[in-house]
Amino acid sequence: MHYQRNFYEIRSNQEIFKDICKELNHVGYYRLPFQDTSKIKAHATKITQKNIIIVGIGGSILGTKAIYTFLKTSRAFQKKLIFLDTIDPLEVNYLLGEIKLEDSHFIVISKSGDTIEPISLFKYLDIKIDLDKSNLTIITGKDSLLDLFSQRNDINCFYIDENVGGRFSVFSPVGLLPLASVGVDIDALLDGCKEIFDGFFDQKNHYEHIIKKARFLVENKSRFTNNIVFSYSSIFKEFNSWYIQLWAESLGKINSNGTRQGLTPIALLGPDDQHSFLQLIIDGVRNKTVTFIKVKNLKDKSIIPHNNSSRKIGLDFIEKISFNDLINMQADSTYEAIIQQKDIPCDLITLESVDERNIAMLMYRFQLIVSCIGAFLQINTYNQPAVELGKDILKSKLKK
Amino acid sequence: MHYQRNFYEIRSNQEIFKDICKELNHVGYYRLPFQDTSKIKAHATKITQKNIIIVGIGGSILGTKAIYTFLKTSRAFQKKLIFLDTIDPLEVNYLLGEIKLEDSHFIVISKSGDTIEPISLFKYLDIKIDLDKSNLTIITGKDSLLDLFSQRNDINCFYIDENVGGRFSVFSPVGLLPLASVGVDIDALLDGCKEIFDGFFDQKNHYEHIIKKARFLVENKSRFTNNIVFSYSSIFKEFNSWYIQLWAESLGKINSNGTRQGLTPIALLGPDDQHSFLQLIIDGVRNKTVTFIKVKNLKDKSIIPHNNSSRKIGLDFIEKISFNDLINMQADSTYEAIIQQKDIPCDLITLESVDERNIAMLMYRFQLIVSCIGAFLQINTYNQPAVELGKDILKSKLKK
Repeated sequence: MHYQRNFYEIRSNQEIFKDICKELNHVGYYRLPFQDTSKIKAHATKITQKNIIIVGIGGSILGTKAIYTFLKTSRAFQKKLIFLDTIDPLEVNYLLGEIKLEDSHFIVISKSGDTIEPISLFKYLDIKIDLDKSNLTIITGKDSLLDLFSQRNDINCFYIDENVGGRFSVFSPVGLLPLASVGVDIDALLDGCKEIFDGFFDQKNHYEHIIKKARFLVENKSRFTNNIVFSYSSIFKEFNSWYIQLWAESLGKINSNGTRQGLTPIALLGPDDQHSFLQLIIDGVRNKTVTFIKVKNLKDKSIIPHNNSSRKIGLDFIEKISFNDLINMQADSTYEAIIQQKDIPCDLITLESVDERNIAMLMYRFQLIVSCIGAFLQINTYNQPAVELGKDILKSKLKK
Repeated sequence: MHYQRNFYEIRSNQEIFKDICKELNHVGYYRLPFQDTSKIKAHATKITQKNIIIVGIGGSILGTKAIYTFLKTSRAFQKKLIFLDTIDPLEVNYLLGEIKLEDSHFIVISKSGDTIEPISLFKYLDIKIDLDKSNLTIITGKDSLLDLFSQRNDINCFYIDENVGGRFSVFSPVGLLPLASVGVDIDALLDGCKEIFDGFFDQKNHYEHIIKKARFLVENKSRFTNNIVFSYSSIFKEFNSWYIQLWAESLGKINSNGTRQGLTPIALLGPDDQHSFLQLIIDGVRNKTVTFIKVKNLKDKSIIPHNNSSRKIGLDFIEKISFNDLINMQADSTYEAIIQQKDIPCDLITLESVDERNIAMLMYRFQLIVSCIGAFLQINTYNQPAVELGKDILKSKLKK
């Protein structure tokens, strides 16, 4: 008698952990917290222009946007990061029209060095502006077209390691150089990552949460197909977009057993989306999990004032409390409303404060969960084979 | 013998059409294209300040944002719309810090007149700035708290009809007044709506597309649970958010048979999201439909230039074509890649140009589809009962 298995293995949490530990050797993002940042910081201090314009798309830009947007409203950054991540000519010319180009430094980012969007923008800019060592930096993979360009034209170039994928590259030079150049404390970012790394790989505090959540999502993937992140504060706007890329592009795969996998990411902002998507969560089909994210201390003490009688508007019960408290009470109320449904899986992540360490912890934690889900699903979490088809069709159209 | 039916009826396209025709009498948005706009235009010309700041959330703001964002990069608007649709204190103070408050006109919008977010912002602004008839306009429902405030303090007030729901209110004063005040041709907007209205209710060109698509989505609602809008151009960024609210809040309902309904909206921007979500569409689980939207003529002729040999970057095949053509070729290539999968339902909407008529046609068409889907699902498309629970919990927290 012979028994042949043709379904994929359901592995224990401990086995998944062992798989992830094996990945430490060949998946680059795990080790980024431990890199030497001195070269990046040295170059960042040499960038004297006021506007730092990043030319890139997808993984080259989303993580940087997430961190910058998280920090910028509470910091008096002296410089401004501007993201040229569109080839929409209306948007491109509108953005360039609003910027003093002579007081700008361009950072062109493409790991492959031949991504169509940033390269076409780069060609466009290269005619409009005199670009040289003084106002241009390139971040790319070794020996790519962009690397060759930088060598020929004596442009400063930083490398993205081959084994660091775009959507896992925010803590490589891709994110660190632009962020350092406006004054973000990149060592504090890496400290946040290290804290999560240690807590996971030493099988301490973060370990169980992460593995257990990944397992739950995979075991219930057919029932709960959509995973909502509901972030309470506008500062998470771009974190939300980063999450969508990380989740969709990492987990939307055909697995080792040949079956289609993929959990669908949805990202909401509170309280705005209480007035938009919330109705669907509560009364709609039960195919969603919800992860709430809030910040305990927004470091802003603005109070909703008490109006005097002649200007009375009503709703007196919202007076004399801070917006910070109001937004967190809204997060808690929505969280409780979801819990009362009893059949919507949800969890709540609370960041202590608006700083480098907290946003890095959050992002590194999401990367680890994605790695664990991918291991459970038996997929390659780190490639993106399906996007090639559209690119090939485009190239054949262009060459016509 | 007695037969009792306890499942909901599957009705013919013609029956659904009759249901919608009945709605013409009591659902307000259908008739908005035929309103008299003279009072709105007259007030708009009296607003002389450069910044028009809209204080509102959800349906009070998303439609206006959609139209303004669609038009603004190709128009030299002399005035600026600014949207205060957050109570995040960091964002609020950051935004207010960037604006000349003395050159600003505030439009406070809340249909109920007691929406917590805009009212708390209004209280905050009312202490910071001298608000009176000269720099404040209110848009609200008759006899609401805001209406009473406007009467007591002699503030100009426009009414939202009781039977026009927030997410269907963009073509009421909610959207028309702010848009007219920056120079948008609001009559051209309504002309676009009328064209769709006529084509649908006279059972002409738009009729069949809309009813058939609604039927397909409902008949396959358990298989294709997620409906993606994939818009090719940054100018659709806020249209995407408007779509999400319209779809989620209208369709996420418990139906007349007591079962949970709801199609999940997902909104993507091309080409950016080719580098993010596309992998999940092509290799992931087949639970998504995709609607592509593109604009034939972006009215911008910027060309990707030919670089001379010393500055050669590579990728010569993208040189000498316009960004307009490139973005549309990208849309077509992704569309073709999806069609090649054979099992992902998709369609493509092409707008002729970037103008009032085209964006209004698109939005009015989406509203009609949502009404038809709602009729097929036998739900109340126009209410949002489930959001009350969280509000009640919040109010009890606040009153403590």
